[in-house]
Order: sequence, then structure tokens, then C-alpha cells
Amino acid sequence: MIELKNDRFLRALMRKTVDITPIWMMRQAGRYLPEYRKVRAEAGDFMALCTNPERACEVTLQPIERYDLDAAILFSDILTIPDAMGLGLFFEPGEGPRFHNPVRTEKDINRLSVIDPYKDLSYVVDAVTNIRRELNGRVPLIGFSGSPWTLATYMVEGKSSRDFLISKTMMFNQPDLMHQLLSVLTDSVIVYLNAQIKAGAQAIQIFDTWGGVLSYHAYKEFSLQYMKKIVYGLIKENEGRKVPIILFTKGGGQWLDEIVTSGCDAVSLDWTTNIGVARKSVGDKVCLQGNMDPAILRSNPKRIKEEVEAILMQFGGGTGHVFNLGHGITPDIKPENVRVFIDAVHELSSVHRNA
Amino acid sequence: MIELKNDRFLRALMRKTVDITPIWMMRQAGRYLPEYRKVRAEAGDFMALCTNPERACEVTLQPIERYDLDAAILFSDILTIPDAMGLGLFFEPGEGPRFHNPVRTEKDINRLSVIDPYKDLSYVVDAVTNIRRELNGRVPLIGFSGSPWTLATYMVEGKSSRDFLISKTMMFNQPDLMHQLLSVLTDSVIVYLNAQIKAGAQAIQIFDTWGGVLSYHAYKEFSLQYMKKIVYGLIKENEGRKVPIILFTKGGGQWLDEIVTSGCDAVSLDWTTNIGVARKSVGDKVCLQGNMDPAILRSNPKRIKEEVEAILMQFGGGTGHVFNLGHGITPDIKPENVRVFIDAVHELSSVHRNA
Repeated sequence: MIELKNDRFLRALMRKTVDITPIWMMRQAGRYLPEYRKVRAEAGDFMALCTNPERACEVTLQPIERYDLDAAILFSDILTIPDAMGLGLFFEPGEGPRFHNPVRTEKDINRLSVIDPYKDLSYVVDAVTNIRRELNGRVPLIGFSGSPWTLATYMVEGKSSRDFLISKTMMFNQPDLMHQLLSVLTDSVIVYLNAQIKAGAQAIQIFDTWGGVLSYHAYKEFSLQYMKKIVYGLIKENEGRKVPIILFTKGGGQWLDEIVTSGCDAVSLDWTTNIGVARKSVGDKVCLQGNMDPAILRSNPKRIKEEVEAILMQFGGGTGHVFNLGHGITPDIKPENVRVFIDAVHELSSVHRNA
Repeated sequence: MIELKNDRFLRALMRKTVDITPIWMMRQAGRYLPEYRKVRAEAGDFMALCTNPERACEVTLQPIERYDLDAAILFSDILTIPDAMGLGLFFEPGEGPRFHNPVRTEKDINRLSVIDPYKDLSYVVDAVTNIRRELNGRVPLIGFSGSPWTLATYMVEGKSSRDFLISKTMMFNQPDLMHQLLSVLTDSVIVYLNAQIKAGAQAIQIFDTWGGVLSYHAYKEFSLQYMKKIVYGLIKENEGRKVPIILFTKGGGQWLDEIVTSGCDAVSLDWTTNIGVARKSVGDKVCLQGNMDPAILRSNPKRIKEEVEAILMQFGGGTGHVFNLGHGITPDIKPENVRVFIDAVHELSSVHRNA
């Protein structure tokens, strides 16, 4: 087994001491990088890139080669599970993800079955294996999945949504049917993430991108409940090390007290939450990840450094912080601003720790 | 002066005792009503309807004629102020609002000046006068405006946005310029709302639809600060009665402690906030308005009543609650479900009060 040279990220997730604050960025392997755009153009389209384990490995490593990041994240899409269930994922230019066969009826949902990651999503398992080999112990690898609720919204709506009216109507009018859909998704997410862990993923993030569109009670019943089941169902340790789990409910800042009851190791915050207030609320129960507004990367080096400093100050020092953006980096960002951001986190957190 | 026959809404806003919980709905005069669609078709388009004081009065009263609502709200659009500033508001079918002349540069913003409501927006003032006459004291009339930040995002982006990247870039890179824009908007909102009050608006709601896309610190500096100035600048009393002010920051549930420092009388909550938790947090400082997910109106009478009951229970009885949706009603809702909703609020709050 190859030794992990930089374990800052895993240590911070477990609220152990670190020399400086670790950082990675949501969507760090993405369109803002010219080398990514090159590989994606060669691959043809986005799904061709995801389903090719060599290319997925290559783009996963691009930001690691370029920047001083403390973790790599598997390059893939949250919608691989519904695609494996036969919904027919496709992307229309400038439109976001869509499904040929959305699920709307009892018949549609009865037809779904739990995926077999080694059969249906072997390209993801192979990508994880490749990435671990190529990382060669430089930094840990994060595996991920969408949350059951988030996957369900895309499957029912058939595409991105603004109001989620079709999925919410199912939730209100046919709650048992929605629970059936969420259950088959939960079981699928568990086997999918466990396959990623066995193949070498050293930490897991669950993206609950659309949990924040629910009411407090609906969130607990239709999203958080299933994420708790996933936390319970995941392999706890691999390669002699704990595999920490990060939950990210975008828009979930009001529900931190509930989210920490899931048993997760870390909670990722979007930028609307004051990380100092969040820390007071969660105490030493979890690590906090986040939470800079990605739009700040559009500004200038001085402003970026000020914001990094402000967030470090709000967190207030000590253990249990992984720096990140509050959501994915957008394609319009200049790669040199990303370097300023990453280096500022390391430099300024070092200053604060030594102060 | 005509006596106000139903002052339940105004009393609840001031946290005075009421017999039953008052209710109105955001966008209650809207496309879900067949009689609205008829007048709108006759008017031609949405702005033709807004700018015609007779028709605006007619549609404002439609939901009051049909349902047992406790307040009327002026039929208008939040973007009348930017339109009056010369930006050229127009609506493309299915696209939302757009401006012919967005403001992006120092030159664009230097050219803006504070509106004169009696000259530039006399159609709104006239509509308010007409509505008060036609209401004839049945229920109070709510006047409204967009918040400076919300208006600024539309003016800079030129349309609705998902990421608000252009407005946020101005905020981060040219904060002084953004403050200049927000200042001229704040002064305009103050004279606009005071004109509505003088013409007969008996309560005011400020719609901060996009405050919730900001970080905690950016929210305080770029949105809340200006809403505080508006609260300070508004006429406090008219016709011998206090004119209460409601602030509605969609997505602002994490910032209630800050919002109540604005001096507003009531805070409107979207559906992501547990109104019981909110009440504990704000104490007796303000009235709370809200907070049912509008999507629940797509379900069935039984489910709607259950949700009304759940929200009344979460609030927990006593004074200081105005029932409402957490955001505007959508065009797909059946008018009979709206009746179930409104009547359930009155019936169930009566039961709880007598228990």
C-alpha cells in the first residue's frame, strides 16, 4: 500500500490537528481549465468523458497537477445512477442534464431496481482504481454521489427545475410512491459508494443539491432520512483508515442541528451561512467545510485574499475546517485567480495558526 | 373617512389580539384566476395591465370578491422603478422580465436619478386611489416595492438570473459603484412607497426576492442596510393609524436576528424556515408572516388542511401571525384549492384559539 503523503484533508475531516487548513474546490476539474476543455473536446461530449475511465482519471488529476490542492475528487456526474437505471441521461448544449424517460407513475417506479455498480457503473469503479494509481499517494481521493432526493427530482422532472412542481406534487399527493423511489435510490447509492470505497475512495461527499427547496419537515422526511440511511450503510473503514462522510445540503444552513444527527463526519456549507455561527451551533460534533461564494473568484487577488481571511477569522482557528467554495466553480473563472485563492488559504491559515 | 371593517391583518402585524389568523397570498391577483386571465387578455400584455389604473384596480379586487381574504395587495410589478428610470422593461413570453438598457458601467449609473412617483409612476398612485375607493373599507390595502438589492440585480443583469454573476462582480470589484446604484434606488423606493401610503396603502411589503443569494456579510452591507434606510424613511402613520412594514427576504431564514434590527414590524418567511424556530429566535420583536410552500396547493384538500394545521401548531398560538404562502402562488393552481386553503386558516385558527 502506497503511503499517503498529504493527509491534511482526512485529518481535518476527523477534527484532528493540521499544520494549515486543507482546501479543495467543488467542480475543481472543470471547464475553467483549458486542459480540461481540450480533453473534453477530444472525448466528444460530457458523458463520453465520464464513461471513459482513462479520460476521467486524466481530468481528475489536472487540478492536482496545476495547484496545491489537498484532495482530488472523482470526475463524474451525480446522474450516473438514474442513467444506469435506464432513464437515458443526455445533455443538450447550454441546457443542463435531461432524461429521455422520466419517472412519473407507479408503473415507472415499480420498474426500477437497485443498480449493480460492478455491472452498470463499472466505468466509475475503474476510474477510481485508475485515479488512485495515478495519484500515487499525493493527496486523498473523494468519491461522491447525489442524494436520493436530489436524484429523485431530476428523475421525476426529467431535467433541472426551478420550482420542482412535478416532484413536489408526487411528494404531497403520493408520498408512498415518492418514498418507494427514494428507497430504491438509497439502496443504489449505498452499493455505489461502497464500490467506490473498495476501489479506493478515501472520503465520501453526498451532494444534496436540491434538499434546500423543501420545508423543514419535508426535508427531514424526504431527504435527510435517506442520507442517514446512507451514512449507516457505508463501509466505515478501508485500508486501515476511517472513510469520512461529508453531507452537503445546498440551502441547508437553517437545519444544521438536524443534519449533524445523521452521523456524518463533516457538513459542507454554502456561502449564505456564517461559518462562525454554524460552528457555535454544531460545536465539536462535525467538521465544517466551505464556504466562499464562488462568484468572488471573478474579482481580483486582493478581494479574494480578503474573503479568505474573513472566512478563516469567522471560523476562528482550531481544528475541523476544510476550506472550499459554497458551490461549484463556474466556467468563467480565470485559472490564475484560483491559484491566488488556494495559496491564500494555505498562507493565511498558517499565519492564523502561528498567531 | 370610511371605516375599516376588517382590521385583523393590521392588528396581527402590530401583534395585537385577533379573533382568527388573518391571511393573504403573495400574487393573489394572478394567472391562476380565470377572471384575471380574461382582463389580462383584454389589456394585451402584463405591463399594459400594470399601467392602466382602472384595470389594475379591477384585478386587485378579483381575489377579494372571490375569497375571504384579509388584505388586498396592489396589482403591480416590482420593476416599475427601473422602468421609470429609463431601462425599458419588457416581458418576453415565458421568459420573465427583461430590460432593453441594463446598467453596467459608471456612466450608466451616473445617468440615473431618483424617480418622481407623481410624474413617472402616476399610474401606480392612481391605481392605489382607485383600489381604496373600490375596496370601500372591506379589507386593508398593501402597497409594495422591490428591495434596492433585488432591483439592482435585474438592472445590472438585464433579466432574471441564476448565478447573479454580473451583479456580484460589480459588488466585489466596484463596491462603491454598486452602493451608488443602491442609494439612488433606496431614495426612489422611499418616495415611491410614501406616495403609495399617501394615496391610501395601509401596510407596506418590501420584496427582497434575491437577498438570499448573498453571503451573510454581503447581505448586511448590500441589501439589509438599504432596507433599514427605507424603514426609517417611510411615513409612520396615516389616517390616524400606524402603517406597518413587512420585510420579505426570500432565503433569509438564517438572518432573522439581523433582519429584526431593521425596525420593520413583520418578517415574511419562505417555507424553508420552521416558523416555530423563527418565533423563538425573534421573540416578540416582530410579527411573522408565512410560510406554506405554494406547491402544497397542487395537492388535495386533506393535505392542504393538514399543512395549515401543522403551521398553526408550529407557530403555537397567540398574537403576531399573518398566514401566507412562502412565495407567490403559481399559475397552475386550481382556484378551489385556494378556497380550501383560505377557509382552513380561518377555521383551524379559530379552533386553536378556543382550545
